[in-house]
Amino acid sequence: MTATILDGRALSNTLREELDQAVAIFKEKHGVTPTIAVVRAGEDPASVSYAGAIQKTFDKRGMGFQLHTLPESASQDEIVALVTRLNADKEVHGIMIQEPLPRGIDEAAVKEALSPDKDVDGVHPVNTGRLAQVAPAGRPPMVGPFFVPATPAGGMEILKRYNVAISGKHAVVVGRSNIVGKPMALLLLRENATVTVCHSRTADLAAVCRTADILCAAVGQAKMIKGDWIKPGAVVIDFGVNFVEGQMCGDVDFDEAVEVAGMITPVPGGTGPMTNMMLALNVLEAARRIMG
Amino acid sequence: MTATILDGRALSNTLREELDQAVAIFKEKHGVTPTIAVVRAGEDPASVSYAGAIQKTFDKRGMGFQLHTLPESASQDEIVALVTRLNADKEVHGIMIQEPLPRGIDEAAVKEALSPDKDVDGVHPVNTGRLAQVAPAGRPPMVGPFFVPATPAGGMEILKRYNVAISGKHAVVVGRSNIVGKPMALLLLRENATVTVCHSRTADLAAVCRTADILCAAVGQAKMIKGDWIKPGAVVIDFGVNFVEGQMCGDVDFDEAVEVAGMITPVPGGTGPMTNMMLALNVLEAARRIMG
Repeated sequence: MTATILDGRALSNTLREELDQAVAIFKEKHGVTPTIAVVRAGEDPASVSYAGAIQKTFDKRGMGFQLHTLPESASQDEIVALVTRLNADKEVHGIMIQEPLPRGIDEAAVKEALSPDKDVDGVHPVNTGRLAQVAPAGRPPMVGPFFVPATPAGGMEILKRYNVAISGKHAVVVGRSNIVGKPMALLLLRENATVTVCHSRTADLAAVCRTADILCAAVGQAKMIKGDWIKPGAVVIDFGVNFVEGQMCGDVDFDEAVEVAGMITPVPGGTGPMTNMMLALNVLEAARRIMG
Repeated sequence: MTATILDGRALSNTLREELDQAVAIFKEKHGVTPTIAVVRAGEDPASVSYAGAIQKTFDKRGMGFQLHTLPESASQDEIVALVTRLNADKEVHGIMIQEPLPRGIDEAAVKEALSPDKDVDGVHPVNTGRLAQVAPAGRPPMVGPFFVPATPAGGMEILKRYNVAISGKHAVVVGRSNIVGKPMALLLLRENATVTVCHSRTADLAAVCRTADILCAAVGQAKMIKGDWIKPGAVVIDFGVNFVEGQMCGDVDFDEAVEVAGMITPVPGGTGPMTNMMLALNVLEAARRIMG
Protein backbone atom coordinates (compact mmCIF):
# COMPACT_ATOMS: atom_id res chain seq x y z
CA MET A 1 0.00 0.00 0.00
CA THR A 2 1.18 3.51 -0.69
CA ALA A 3 -0.15 6.35 1.41
CA THR A 4 -2.28 9.20 0.14
CA ILE A 5 -0.13 12.31 0.04
CA LEU A 6 -1.53 15.16 2.14
CA ASP A 7 -0.65 17.91 -0.29
CA GLY A 8 0.00 21.01 1.78
CA ARG A 9 1.09 22.99 -1.24
CA ALA A 10 -2.14 22.41 -3.15
CA LEU A 11 -4.14 23.07 0.00
CA SER A 12 -2.27 26.30 0.68
CA ASN A 13 -3.22 27.40 -2.84
CA THR A 14 -6.87 26.79 -2.02
CA LEU A 15 -6.50 28.70 1.24
CA ARG A 16 -4.75 31.50 -0.61
CA GLU A 17 -7.70 31.94 -2.95
CA GLU A 18 -10.12 31.96 -0.03
CA LEU A 19 -7.90 34.41 1.83
CA ASP A 20 -7.62 36.74 -1.16
CA GLN A 21 -11.38 36.93 -1.41
CA ALA A 22 -11.79 37.50 2.30
CA VAL A 23 -9.10 40.20 2.37
CA ALA A 24 -10.71 41.99 -0.56
CA ILE A 25 -14.10 41.95 1.16
CA PHE A 26 -12.56 43.16 4.42
CA LYS A 27 -10.70 46.03 2.75
CA GLU A 28 -13.77 47.13 0.86
CA LYS A 29 -15.92 47.01 3.98
CA HIS A 30 -13.52 48.76 6.35
CA GLY A 31 -11.15 50.69 4.11
CA VAL A 32 -8.35 49.17 6.16
CA THR A 33 -5.49 46.85 5.18
CA PRO A 34 -4.95 43.94 7.61
CA THR A 35 -1.36 44.45 8.71
CA ILE A 36 1.29 42.51 10.57
CA ALA A 37 4.23 44.05 12.40
CA VAL A 38 7.24 41.76 12.75
CA VAL A 39 9.63 42.66 15.58
CA ARG A 40 13.23 41.49 15.51
CA ALA A 41 16.25 42.33 17.63
CA GLY A 42 19.48 41.39 15.89
CA GLU A 43 20.02 39.66 12.60
CA ASP A 44 19.66 35.94 13.23
CA PRO A 45 19.82 34.52 9.67
CA ALA A 46 16.86 32.16 10.06
CA SER A 47 14.77 35.03 11.44
CA VAL A 48 15.79 37.31 8.57
CA SER A 49 14.85 34.64 6.06
CA TYR A 50 11.53 33.88 7.80
CA ALA A 51 10.60 37.58 7.89
CA GLY A 52 11.34 37.77 4.17
CA ALA A 53 9.00 34.86 3.49
CA ILE A 54 6.26 36.47 5.57
CA GLN A 55 6.72 39.77 3.72
CA LYS A 56 6.38 37.99 0.39
CA THR A 57 3.17 36.30 1.46
CA PHE A 58 1.66 39.50 2.81
CA ASP A 59 2.71 41.62 -0.18
CA LYS A 60 1.16 39.14 -2.58
CA ARG A 61 -2.07 38.96 -0.58
CA GLY A 62 -2.48 42.73 -0.53
CA MET A 63 -1.96 42.69 3.22
CA GLY A 64 0.26 45.07 5.16
CA PHE A 65 3.73 44.12 6.39
CA GLN A 66 5.92 46.18 8.69
CA LEU A 67 9.38 45.15 9.87
CA HIS A 68 10.63 46.73 13.08
CA THR A 69 14.25 45.90 13.79
CA LEU A 70 16.28 46.73 16.83
CA PRO A 71 20.00 46.15 17.19
CA GLU A 72 21.36 43.02 18.88
CA SER A 73 22.28 45.36 21.75
CA ALA A 74 18.65 46.39 22.36
CA SER A 75 17.60 46.38 26.00
CA GLN A 76 14.55 44.74 27.51
CA ASP A 77 12.98 48.16 27.99
CA GLU A 78 13.54 49.13 24.37
CA ILE A 79 11.96 45.92 23.07
CA VAL A 80 8.99 46.19 25.43
CA ALA A 81 8.56 49.89 24.52
CA LEU A 82 8.39 48.96 20.82
CA VAL A 83 5.84 46.22 21.48
CA THR A 84 3.77 48.60 23.63
CA ARG A 85 3.80 51.19 20.88
CA LEU A 86 2.66 48.58 18.31
CA ASN A 87 -0.09 47.39 20.70
CA ALA A 88 -1.52 50.91 20.55
CA ASP A 89 -0.94 51.47 16.82
CA LYS A 90 -4.32 51.40 15.08
CA GLU A 91 -2.72 50.49 11.74
CA VAL A 92 -1.22 47.29 13.15
CA HIS A 93 -3.55 44.31 13.67
CA GLY A 94 -1.08 41.54 14.40
CA ILE A 95 2.36 41.46 15.99
CA MET A 96 4.97 38.71 15.75
CA ILE A 97 8.10 38.80 17.86
CA GLN A 98 10.87 36.83 16.24
CA GLU A 99 12.98 34.50 18.34
CA PRO A 100 15.67 34.15 19.41
CA LEU A 101 15.79 37.47 21.23
CA PRO A 102 19.28 38.62 22.24
CA ARG A 103 20.93 37.04 25.26
CA GLY A 104 19.81 38.46 28.56
CA ILE A 105 16.36 39.42 27.30
CA ASP A 106 13.49 37.96 29.32
CA GLU A 107 11.48 36.37 26.49
CA ALA A 108 8.54 35.57 28.75
CA ALA A 109 8.20 39.21 29.77
CA VAL A 110 8.38 40.35 26.13
CA LYS A 111 5.67 37.86 25.13
CA GLU A 112 3.45 39.03 27.95
CA ALA A 113 3.95 42.64 26.86
CA LEU A 114 2.03 41.75 23.69
CA SER A 115 -1.63 42.61 23.53
CA PRO A 116 -3.32 39.18 23.41
CA ASP A 117 -5.68 40.64 20.78
CA LYS A 118 -2.73 41.22 18.42
CA ASP A 119 -0.81 38.05 19.33
CA VAL A 120 -1.31 36.39 15.95
CA ASP A 121 1.53 33.96 16.67
CA GLY A 122 -0.34 32.62 19.73
CA VAL A 123 2.57 32.95 22.15
CA HIS A 124 0.98 35.01 24.95
CA PRO A 125 0.00 32.82 27.92
CA VAL A 126 -3.55 34.14 27.73
CA ASN A 127 -3.88 32.67 24.25
CA THR A 128 -2.23 29.40 25.30
CA GLY A 129 -4.42 29.31 28.40
CA ARG A 130 -7.63 29.81 26.46
CA LEU A 131 -6.59 27.07 24.05
CA ALA A 132 -5.88 24.80 27.04
CA GLN A 133 -9.22 25.66 28.67
CA VAL A 134 -11.48 25.67 25.62
CA ALA A 135 -14.38 23.21 25.71
CA PRO A 136 -14.42 20.24 23.33
CA ALA A 137 -15.52 20.90 19.75
CA GLY A 138 -19.25 21.20 19.31
CA ARG A 139 -19.84 22.83 22.70
CA PRO A 140 -19.82 26.55 23.58
CA PRO A 141 -16.11 27.40 23.98
CA MET A 142 -16.43 28.88 27.51
CA VAL A 143 -13.31 30.99 26.91
CA GLY A 144 -12.61 34.24 25.09
CA PRO A 145 -11.36 34.29 21.49
CA PHE A 146 -7.77 33.21 21.05
CA PHE A 147 -5.00 32.71 18.51
CA VAL A 148 -3.29 29.40 17.80
CA PRO A 149 0.32 29.25 16.56
CA ALA A 150 0.35 29.02 12.78
CA THR A 151 2.24 25.74 12.40
CA PRO A 152 -0.06 23.47 14.41
CA ALA A 153 -3.07 25.40 13.08
CA GLY A 154 -1.86 24.41 9.61
CA GLY A 155 -1.54 20.77 10.62
CA MET A 156 -5.11 20.79 11.91
CA GLU A 157 -6.30 22.46 8.72
CA ILE A 158 -4.76 19.64 6.69
CA LEU A 159 -6.57 17.04 8.81
CA LYS A 160 -9.83 18.93 8.46
CA ARG A 161 -9.62 19.54 4.71
CA TYR A 162 -8.79 15.89 4.07
CA ASN A 163 -11.74 14.86 6.27
CA VAL A 164 -9.58 12.86 8.66
CA ALA A 165 -11.72 11.57 11.52
CA ILE A 166 -10.20 12.72 14.82
CA SER A 167 -12.82 12.11 17.50
CA GLY A 168 -12.07 8.95 19.45
CA LYS A 169 -8.83 8.32 17.57
CA HIS A 170 -5.50 7.95 19.33
CA ALA A 171 -3.24 10.86 18.42
CA VAL A 172 0.42 10.74 19.38
CA VAL A 173 2.39 13.97 19.29
CA VAL A 174 6.15 13.56 19.36
CA GLY A 175 7.73 16.75 20.69
CA ARG A 176 6.44 19.23 23.24
CA SER A 177 7.54 22.66 22.11
CA ASN A 178 5.35 25.64 22.91
CA ILE A 179 4.95 26.53 19.26
CA VAL A 180 4.16 23.11 17.78
CA GLY A 181 3.93 20.04 19.99
CA LYS A 182 1.94 21.29 22.96
CA PRO A 183 -0.58 23.41 21.01
CA MET A 184 -1.05 20.54 18.51
CA ALA A 185 -1.83 18.21 21.41
CA LEU A 186 -4.37 20.68 22.80
CA LEU A 187 -5.99 21.14 19.38
CA LEU A 188 -6.34 17.38 18.91
CA LEU A 189 -7.79 17.07 22.40
CA ARG A 190 -10.37 19.72 21.57
CA GLU A 191 -11.39 17.57 18.59
CA ASN A 192 -11.92 14.65 20.98
CA ALA A 193 -8.85 12.61 20.15
CA THR A 194 -7.24 10.61 22.92
CA VAL A 195 -3.90 12.40 22.98
CA THR A 196 -0.44 11.22 24.01
CA VAL A 197 2.51 13.62 24.21
CA CYS A 198 5.95 12.05 23.78
CA HIS A 199 9.40 13.62 24.09
CA SER A 200 13.06 12.87 24.65
CA ARG A 201 12.37 11.08 27.95
CA THR A 202 9.70 8.78 26.53
CA ALA A 203 10.49 5.12 27.07
CA ASP A 204 10.20 3.01 23.88
CA LEU A 205 9.08 5.80 21.63
CA ALA A 206 8.73 3.44 18.67
CA ALA A 207 6.16 1.35 20.54
CA VAL A 208 4.14 4.41 21.52
CA CYS A 209 4.19 5.71 17.95
CA ARG A 210 2.90 2.36 16.75
CA THR A 211 -0.30 2.88 18.76
CA ALA A 212 -1.10 6.13 16.92
CA ASP A 213 -4.01 6.49 14.53
CA ILE A 214 -2.75 10.04 13.98
CA LEU A 215 0.99 10.55 14.41
CA CYS A 216 2.40 14.08 14.59
CA ALA A 217 6.14 14.63 14.54
CA ALA A 218 7.66 17.87 15.79
CA VAL A 219 11.08 17.08 17.16
CA GLY A 220 13.55 18.50 14.67
CA GLN A 221 15.49 15.28 14.06
CA ALA A 222 15.87 14.23 10.47
CA LYS A 223 14.06 10.99 9.55
CA MET A 224 13.93 9.86 13.16
CA ILE A 225 10.55 8.18 12.83
CA LYS A 226 10.94 4.98 10.83
CA GLY A 227 8.44 3.06 8.77
CA ASP A 228 8.10 0.30 11.35
CA TRP A 229 7.14 2.89 14.01
CA ILE A 230 3.92 3.52 12.11
CA LYS A 231 0.67 1.63 12.44
CA PRO A 232 -0.48 0.49 9.00
CA GLY A 233 -3.01 3.00 7.70
CA ALA A 234 -2.15 5.74 10.22
CA VAL A 235 -2.26 9.43 9.30
CA VAL A 236 1.16 11.04 9.62
CA ILE A 237 1.64 14.79 10.01
CA ASP A 238 5.30 15.76 9.80
CA PHE A 239 6.21 19.21 11.15
CA GLY A 240 9.94 18.60 10.89
CA VAL A 241 12.14 20.94 8.85
CA ASN A 242 15.62 19.47 8.71
CA PHE A 243 18.42 19.55 6.18
CA VAL A 244 20.53 16.53 5.29
CA GLU A 245 23.27 17.15 2.74
CA GLY A 246 21.46 20.27 1.61
CA GLN A 247 18.16 18.47 1.12
CA MET A 248 15.12 19.38 3.20
CA CYS A 249 13.52 16.48 5.04
CA GLY A 250 11.09 15.95 7.89
CA ASP A 251 11.24 14.12 11.20
CA VAL A 252 9.70 11.09 9.51
CA ASP A 253 11.57 8.79 7.17
CA PHE A 254 9.20 9.52 4.32
CA ASP A 255 10.35 6.79 1.92
CA GLU A 256 9.71 4.13 4.52
CA ALA A 257 6.61 5.72 6.04
CA VAL A 258 4.80 6.23 2.74
CA GLU A 259 4.66 2.44 2.33
CA VAL A 260 2.94 1.95 5.70
CA ALA A 261 0.86 5.03 6.45
CA GLY A 262 -2.64 5.66 5.14
CA MET A 263 -2.00 9.36 4.64
CA ILE A 264 1.17 11.40 5.04
CA THR A 265 2.46 14.94 4.62
CA PRO A 266 5.62 15.18 2.53
CA VAL A 267 8.52 17.48 3.47
CA PRO A 268 8.77 19.83 1.68
CA GLY A 269 5.21 20.42 0.51
CA GLY A 270 3.26 19.34 3.58
CA THR A 271 2.84 21.38 6.72
CA GLY A 272 5.38 24.01 5.64
CA PRO A 273 3.38 25.79 2.91
CA MET A 274 0.42 26.03 5.28
CA THR A 275 2.20 28.02 7.97
CA ASN A 276 2.39 31.47 6.40
CA MET A 277 -1.15 31.14 5.10
CA MET A 278 -2.42 30.35 8.61
CA LEU A 279 -0.47 33.34 9.96
CA ALA A 280 -2.09 35.58 7.34
CA LEU A 281 -5.51 34.17 8.29
CA ASN A 282 -4.77 34.99 11.94
CA VAL A 283 -3.89 38.57 10.98
CA LEU A 284 -7.13 38.91 9.02
CA GLU A 285 -9.02 37.51 12.01
CA ALA A 286 -7.25 39.96 14.36
CA ALA A 287 -8.19 42.83 12.05
CA ARG A 288 -11.81 41.64 12.00
CA ARG A 289 -11.96 41.52 15.78
CA ILE A 290 -10.37 44.94 16.13
CA MET A 291 -12.73 46.48 13.57
CA GLY A 292 -15.69 44.78 15.24
CA MET B 1 0.06 -8.27 46.29
CA THR B 2 -1.67 -5.45 48.12
CA ALA B 3 -0.88 -1.87 47.17
CA THR B 4 0.83 0.66 49.40
CA ILE B 5 -1.80 3.16 50.51
CA LEU B 6 -0.92 6.74 49.56
CA ASP B 7 -2.14 8.30 52.78
CA GLY B 8 -3.32 11.79 51.88
CA ARG B 9 -4.63 12.41 55.36
CA ALA B 10 -1.30 11.74 57.04
CA LEU B 11 0.48 13.74 54.37
CA SER B 12 -1.89 16.67 54.79
CA ASN B 13 -1.02 16.64 58.50
CA THR B 14 2.66 16.93 57.62
CA LEU B 15 1.89 19.75 55.21
CA ARG B 16 -0.22 21.43 57.87
CA GLU B 17 2.68 21.51 60.29
CA GLU B 18 4.98 22.92 57.63
CA LEU B 19 2.36 25.47 56.66
CA ASP B 20 1.78 26.55 60.27
CA GLN B 21 5.48 27.24 60.68
CA ALA B 22 5.69 29.11 57.38
CA VAL B 23 2.60 31.20 58.18
CA ALA B 24 4.00 32.11 61.60
CA ILE B 25 7.29 33.20 60.06
CA PHE B 26 5.49 35.20 57.39
CA LYS B 27 3.24 36.98 59.89
CA GLU B 28 6.17 37.83 62.12
CA LYS B 29 8.21 39.15 59.22
CA HIS B 30 5.49 41.19 57.51
CA GLY B 31 2.90 41.84 60.21
CA VAL B 32 0.32 40.68 57.70
CA THR B 33 -2.09 37.75 57.74
CA PRO B 34 -2.25 35.79 54.44
CA THR B 35 -5.90 36.08 53.50
CA ILE B 36 -8.27 34.50 51.00
CA ALA B 37 -11.47 36.07 49.74
CA VAL B 38 -14.09 33.61 48.52
CA VAL B 39 -16.66 35.01 46.11
CA ARG B 40 -20.02 33.36 45.66
CA ALA B 41 -23.20 34.36 43.89
CA GLY B 42 -26.18 32.39 45.07
CA GLU B 43 -26.36 29.54 47.56
CA ASP B 44 -25.41 26.39 45.69
CA PRO B 45 -25.27 23.84 48.55
CA ALA B 46 -21.97 22.25 47.46
CA SER B 47 -20.39 25.72 47.21
CA VAL B 48 -21.70 26.68 50.65
CA SER B 49 -20.27 23.51 52.13
CA TYR B 50 -16.91 23.93 50.35
CA ALA B 51 -16.60 27.53 51.53
CA GLY B 52 -17.24 26.31 55.08
CA ALA B 53 -14.45 23.76 54.78
CA ILE B 54 -12.06 26.41 53.48
CA GLN B 55 -12.99 28.74 56.31
CA LYS B 56 -12.28 26.01 58.86
CA THR B 57 -8.87 25.32 57.35
CA PHE B 58 -7.94 28.99 57.21
CA ASP B 59 -9.22 29.76 60.72
CA LYS B 60 -7.21 26.89 62.18
CA ARG B 61 -4.06 27.92 60.34
CA GLY B 62 -4.25 31.48 61.59
CA MET B 63 -4.89 32.65 58.04
CA GLY B 64 -7.49 35.17 56.99
CA PHE B 65 -10.80 34.16 55.42
CA GLN B 66 -13.38 36.49 53.90
CA LEU B 67 -16.64 35.41 52.34
CA HIS B 68 -18.23 37.77 49.83
CA THR B 69 -21.69 36.66 48.78
CA LEU B 70 -23.91 38.15 46.16
CA PRO B 71 -27.50 37.13 45.50
CA GLU B 72 -28.40 34.61 42.81
CA SER B 73 -29.76 37.63 40.88
CA ALA B 74 -26.34 39.35 40.77
CA SER B 75 -25.41 40.79 37.39
CA GLN B 76 -22.20 40.28 35.48
CA ASP B 77 -21.20 43.85 36.27
CA GLU B 78 -21.80 43.40 39.98
CA ILE B 79 -19.70 40.26 40.15
CA VAL B 80 -16.88 41.78 38.11
CA ALA B 81 -17.02 44.95 40.24
CA LEU B 82 -16.59 42.86 43.40
CA VAL B 83 -13.65 40.95 41.91
CA THR B 84 -12.06 44.22 40.77
CA ARG B 85 -12.42 45.66 44.25
CA LEU B 86 -10.80 42.56 45.79
CA ASN B 87 -7.97 42.72 43.23
CA ALA B 88 -7.11 46.16 44.60
CA ASP B 89 -7.67 45.29 48.28
CA LYS B 90 -4.27 45.16 50.01
CA GLU B 91 -5.60 42.91 52.76
CA VAL B 92 -6.63 40.20 50.30
CA HIS B 93 -3.87 37.99 48.83
CA GLY B 94 -5.89 35.29 47.14
CA ILE B 95 -9.32 35.21 45.51
CA MET B 96 -11.44 32.18 44.72
CA ILE B 97 -14.61 32.48 42.68
CA GLN B 98 -16.97 29.64 43.43
CA GLU B 99 -18.75 27.89 40.62
CA PRO B 100 -21.37 27.50 39.42
CA LEU B 101 -22.08 31.18 38.86
CA PRO B 102 -25.75 32.04 38.19
CA ARG B 103 -27.21 31.35 34.76
CA GLY B 104 -26.43 33.98 32.18
CA ILE B 105 -23.14 34.99 33.79
CA ASP B 106 -20.11 34.79 31.48
CA GLU B 107 -17.81 32.67 33.64
CA ALA B 108 -14.84 33.17 31.33
CA ALA B 109 -15.11 36.95 31.65
CA VAL B 110 -15.37 36.71 35.44
CA LYS B 111 -12.26 34.50 35.61
CA GLU B 112 -10.35 36.91 33.42
CA ALA B 113 -11.37 39.79 35.67
CA LEU B 114 -9.26 38.20 38.41
CA SER B 115 -5.77 39.52 38.95
CA PRO B 116 -3.57 36.56 37.94
CA ASP B 117 -1.40 37.38 40.96
CA LYS B 118 -4.32 36.64 43.30
CA ASP B 119 -5.75 33.72 41.29
CA VAL B 120 -4.88 31.10 43.92
CA ASP B 121 -7.31 28.66 42.32
CA GLY B 122 -5.37 28.74 39.06
CA VAL B 123 -8.35 29.43 36.82
CA HIS B 124 -7.20 32.56 34.93
CA PRO B 125 -5.97 31.70 31.40
CA VAL B 126 -2.66 33.42 32.16
CA ASN B 127 -2.00 30.92 34.92
CA THR B 128 -3.15 28.00 32.76
CA GLY B 129 -1.06 29.31 29.87
CA ARG B 130 2.09 29.63 31.96
CA LEU B 131 1.56 26.09 33.24
CA ALA B 132 1.13 24.90 29.65
CA GLN B 133 4.25 26.78 28.51
CA VAL B 134 6.57 26.11 31.44
CA ALA B 135 9.83 24.34 30.59
CA PRO B 136 10.39 20.77 31.79
CA ALA B 137 11.48 20.33 35.42
CA GLY B 138 15.13 21.04 36.03
CA ARG B 139 15.36 23.81 33.43
CA PRO B 140 14.71 27.53 33.89
CA PRO B 141 10.91 27.88 33.71
CA MET B 142 10.88 30.52 30.91
CA VAL B 143 7.51 31.77 32.11
CA GLY B 144 6.35 34.04 34.91
CA PRO B 145 5.20 32.65 38.27
CA PHE B 146 1.84 30.93 38.21
CA PHE B 147 -0.72 29.16 40.35
CA VAL B 148 -1.88 25.59 39.83
CA PRO B 149 -5.39 24.45 40.83
CA ALA B 150 -5.26 22.93 44.30
CA THR B 151 -6.62 19.47 43.49
CA PRO B 152 -4.04 18.42 40.86
CA ALA B 153 -1.33 20.21 42.88
CA GLY B 154 -2.27 17.93 45.76
CA GLY B 155 -2.04 14.86 43.54
CA MET B 156 1.45 15.89 42.42
CA GLU B 157 2.46 16.51 46.04
CA ILE B 158 1.43 12.96 46.93
CA LEU B 159 3.57 11.56 44.08
CA LYS B 160 6.49 13.71 45.16
CA ARG B 161 6.32 12.95 48.88
CA TYR B 162 6.08 9.23 48.20
CA ASN B 163 9.08 9.49 45.87
CA VAL B 164 7.20 8.12 42.87
CA ALA B 165 9.43 8.25 39.80
CA ILE B 166 7.64 10.20 37.07
CA SER B 167 10.24 10.96 34.41
CA GLY B 168 9.96 8.59 31.46
CA LYS B 169 6.91 6.85 32.92
CA HIS B 170 3.62 6.61 31.06
CA ALA B 171 0.98 8.63 32.86
CA VAL B 172 -2.64 8.27 31.81
CA VAL B 173 -5.10 10.93 32.95
CA VAL B 174 -8.76 9.97 32.62
CA GLY B 175 -10.84 13.14 32.45
CA ARG B 176 -10.05 16.51 30.94
CA SER B 177 -11.65 19.12 33.15
CA ASN B 178 -9.97 22.49 33.49
CA ILE B 179 -9.61 22.13 37.23
CA VAL B 180 -8.24 18.59 37.46
CA GLY B 181 -7.59 16.52 34.34
CA LYS B 182 -5.90 19.02 32.03
CA PRO B 183 -3.70 20.71 34.66
CA MET B 184 -2.72 17.29 36.05
CA ALA B 185 -1.65 16.23 32.53
CA LEU B 186 0.42 19.40 32.15
CA LEU B 187 2.03 18.90 35.57
CA LEU B 188 2.99 15.32 34.73
CA LEU B 189 4.37 16.46 31.38
CA ARG B 190 6.52 19.04 33.15
CA GLU B 191 7.95 16.18 35.22
CA ASN B 192 8.86 14.39 32.00
CA ALA B 193 6.18 11.72 31.99
CA THR B 194 4.82 10.57 28.66
CA VAL B 195 1.24 11.72 29.11
CA THR B 196 -2.01 10.43 27.64
CA VAL B 197 -5.29 12.26 28.20
CA CYS B 198 -8.45 10.14 27.97
CA HIS B 199 -12.10 11.13 28.13
CA SER B 200 -15.62 10.08 27.24
CA ARG B 201 -14.75 9.65 23.56
CA THR B 202 -11.71 7.46 24.16
CA ALA B 203 -11.94 4.11 22.39
CA ASP B 204 -11.23 1.11 24.64
CA LEU B 205 -10.50 3.12 27.75
CA ALA B 206 -9.69 -0.04 29.73
CA ALA B 207 -6.87 -0.92 27.33
CA VAL B 208 -5.40 2.57 27.52
CA CYS B 209 -5.55 2.54 31.31
CA ARG B 210 -3.71 -0.78 31.32
CA THR B 211 -0.69 0.90 29.70
CA ALA B 212 -0.35 3.40 32.57
CA ASP B 213 2.52 3.38 35.02
CA ILE B 214 0.73 6.26 36.72
CA LEU B 215 -3.05 6.30 36.39
CA CYS B 216 -4.99 9.41 37.40
CA ALA B 217 -8.77 9.31 37.53
CA ALA B 218 -10.83 12.49 37.44
CA VAL B 219 -14.11 11.69 35.78
CA GLY B 220 -16.69 11.75 38.54
CA GLN B 221 -18.09 8.26 37.95
CA ALA B 222 -18.19 6.01 40.95
CA LYS B 223 -15.88 2.96 40.75
CA MET B 224 -15.67 3.20 36.97
CA ILE B 225 -12.05 2.05 36.80
CA LYS B 226 -11.90 -1.66 37.55
CA GLY B 227 -9.05 -3.75 38.90
CA ASP B 228 -8.36 -5.36 35.54
CA TRP B 229 -7.90 -1.91 33.96
CA ILE B 230 -4.76 -1.46 36.05
CA LYS B 231 -1.27 -2.58 35.17
CA PRO B 232 0.15 -4.63 38.04
CA GLY B 233 2.29 -2.38 40.18
CA ALA B 234 0.94 0.89 38.77
CA VAL B 235 0.50 4.01 40.89
CA VAL B 236 -3.15 5.09 41.06
CA ILE B 237 -4.23 8.61 41.97
CA ASP B 238 -7.98 8.86 42.40
CA PHE B 239 -9.47 12.38 42.30
CA GLY B 240 -13.05 11.14 42.23
CA VAL B 241 -15.51 12.23 44.88
CA ASN B 242 -18.72 10.28 44.43
CA PHE B 243 -21.41 9.04 46.74
CA VAL B 244 -23.02 5.61 46.49
CA GLU B 245 -25.74 4.88 49.02
CA GLY B 246 -24.41 7.67 51.20
CA GLN B 247 -20.85 6.35 51.13
CA MET B 248 -18.05 8.39 49.58
CA CYS B 249 -16.07 6.58 46.90
CA GLY B 250 -13.68 7.44 44.10
CA ASP B 251 -13.62 6.89 40.35
CA VAL B 252 -11.59 3.73 40.94
CA ASP B 253 -13.01 0.51 42.29
CA PHE B 254 -10.69 0.58 45.28
CA ASP B 255 -11.33 -2.96 46.56
CA GLU B 256 -10.36 -4.42 43.21
CA ALA B 257 -7.58 -1.96 42.43
CA VAL B 258 -5.77 -2.32 45.74
CA GLU B 259 -5.03 -5.94 44.84
CA VAL B 260 -3.35 -4.97 41.55
CA ALA B 261 -1.80 -1.53 41.94
CA GLY B 262 1.58 -0.84 43.51
CA MET B 263 0.38 2.31 45.25
CA ILE B 264 -3.08 3.84 45.48
CA THR B 265 -4.89 6.77 47.06
CA PRO B 266 -7.99 5.77 49.00
CA VAL B 267 -11.23 7.75 48.84
CA PRO B 268 -11.79 9.27 51.31
CA GLY B 269 -8.33 9.98 52.73
CA GLY B 270 -6.33 10.35 49.53
CA THR B 271 -6.32 13.39 47.29
CA GLY B 272 -9.24 15.03 49.15
CA PRO B 273 -7.46 16.05 52.35
CA MET B 274 -4.62 17.57 50.31
CA THR B 275 -6.79 20.05 48.43
CA ASN B 276 -7.48 22.68 51.08
CA MET B 277 -3.89 22.48 52.27
CA MET B 278 -2.61 23.17 48.75
CA LEU B 279 -5.04 26.08 48.46
CA ALA B 280 -3.73 27.51 51.74
CA LEU B 281 -0.15 27.08 50.45
CA ASN B 282 -1.13 28.98 47.29
CA VAL B 283 -2.53 31.82 49.40
CA LEU B 284 0.66 31.98 51.45
CA GLU B 285 2.66 32.01 48.20
CA ALA B 286 0.47 34.81 46.80
CA ALA B 287 1.01 36.83 49.99
CA ARG B 288 4.77 36.27 49.72
CA ARG B 289 4.82 37.49 46.15
CA ILE B 290 2.69 40.52 46.95
CA MET B 291 4.86 41.44 49.95
CA GLY B 292 8.01 40.90 47.89
